[in-house]
Amino acid sequence: MPDPQPRKQAPDATRRSQRSRQAIYDAALALVAEVGYPKTTVEGIAARAGVGKQTIYRWWPSKADVLLEAFLDLSAQSAEQAGAQPGEPYALPDTGDLAADLKGVLRATVDELLDPRFETPARALAAEGLVNEQVGREFVAKLLEPQLQLYVDRLRAAQDAGQVRPEVDPRIALELFVSPLAQRWLQHTGPISYDYTDTLVDYALYGLAPRA
Amino acid sequence: MPDPQPRKQAPDATRRSQRSRQAIYDAALALVAEVGYPKTTVEGIAARAGVGKQTIYRWWPSKADVLLEAFLDLSAQSAEQAGAQPGEPYALPDTGDLAADLKGVLRATVDELLDPRFETPARALAAEGLVNEQVGREFVAKLLEPQLQLYVDRLRAAQDAGQVRPEVDPRIALELFVSPLAQRWLQHTGPISYDYTDTLVDYALYGLAPRA
Repeated sequence: MPDPQPRKQAPDATRRSQRSRQAIYDAALALVAEVGYPKTTVEGIAARAGVGKQTIYRWWPSKADVLLEAFLDLSAQSAEQAGAQPGEPYALPDTGDLAADLKGVLRATVDELLDPRFETPARALAAEGLVNEQVGREFVAKLLEPQLQLYVDRLRAAQDAGQVRPEVDPRIALELFVSPLAQRWLQHTGPISYDYTDTLVDYALYGLAPRA
Repeated sequence: MPDPQPRKQAPDATRRSQRSRQAIYDAALALVAEVGYPKTTVEGIAARAGVGKQTIYRWWPSKADVLLEAFLDLSAQSAEQAGAQPGEPYALPDTGDLAADLKGVLRATVDELLDPRFETPARALAAEGLVNEQVGREFVAKLLEPQLQLYVDRLRAAQDAGQVRPEVDPRIALELFVSPLAQRWLQHTGPISYDYTDTLVDYALYGLAPRA
C-alpha cells in the first residue's frame, strides 16, 4: 500500500537529517555545559557535531534557537523515560490522589535536576537568562511555562474534584512547591531530595497553620 | 570625659576612611551592574571610586569580598529605611499576627526587588553565583541565609504561640512564600506585586486543600 503521508525527503535523507539533528543537539548541550552560553557559538556546535555551519543555519536562525530545541528534545527524552508516550501531549498523572501525583512528579524532577546531563547545561542557560532578558524570556515562554501549565491543569482537575479550594489561583499555587525546589537547585540554598519535595507538597496542600 | 572606646585612628582619618569605603561600595555596585561580575575588577572599582588599588586590597582580599560587603551595606541601608535601628540585630516584626507580619516584610522585599539600585547588581551577582559555585555559596552563606534565618525565628515564635503546626520545619516552611517571589524576580516567570506576595502568604498559611 502506498504511504498516505506525503514526504519531502526520501527515507535515507530523513534518517541522515535525524542523525545530524541529534548530533547538533548533543554538541550544543555539551558545549554550553563546558564553556557557558556566551562562549558557545554556532561554529563551535557545527565543528563538534561534524556538520557544516550552513546545516545549522538552514534549520535554526541562532544559537539560542538551537539550544532551546536541544533542551526540548532532552526534556522529551526524560519524559519518555518517565513513562510518557512519544508524541503524546504531556499531562501530569491523575490517580485521584493529588498529593501522591504531585510527589511523584517532583521526585522525577529531583532525579532530573541531579542528573549531570541535564544539570550542567540547564544551569548555564539559567545563568544567561538572568542577565540576558531576551534569552531568559524565550526559555521561560517556550520551555518552563509549558511545564508549569501541566501543574495548572492538574490543580484545576483537583479543584473540580473538590480537593483544592475553588478560590485558589492554580498558577500561583503551583509555585509553593515548584519554586522552592527551583531555588534550592539554582542557588544552592539547600539540599534537594524526595523527602524535601514530599514535605513541600504536604505543607502547600494542608498549610502551615493548624486546622481548627 | 575621655572616650572609653579605644581608637586606632584620629576622628578625621576615620571619617576619611568611611568616605572611601562608601565610595568603593558605590563603585563596586555600579560596575557590576554595568559590566557584569566577570568584567568587574578591583582596578576598575578603585579607578571609579578615586582611590588606589592598594586601599582596596588593604581592606578586602578579593572583588567578591568587596561586593559582598557592598551588598551587606546596601541591605542595611534598606533595612534602616524600612524602620530598623542602625546597629541593632535585625528581626522581623512580631505583632502577634503572623500573616500580617509576613505580608509586610514581603511587601518591603517587593519594593527592594523593583528598585534599580538593588535590582541590577543583585541580578548580576545571582547570575555569577549560578555558574561560579564558590561565589554562589559565599553569597548564600553570608547574605541570603542570614536573611532567611529571620523568617525561621519568626515562624518559631509563631509555633510557640500556636499559630504554626508544631511539626512544621520552619526552614522549609519559609520557602513556600520566599522562593516563589525569588523565582519570579530572578527568572521573569511572572509579575511581582503586593497582591501576589499577600496571596502567597495566605496560601502557605492556610493551604490549598479545603479545611474540613
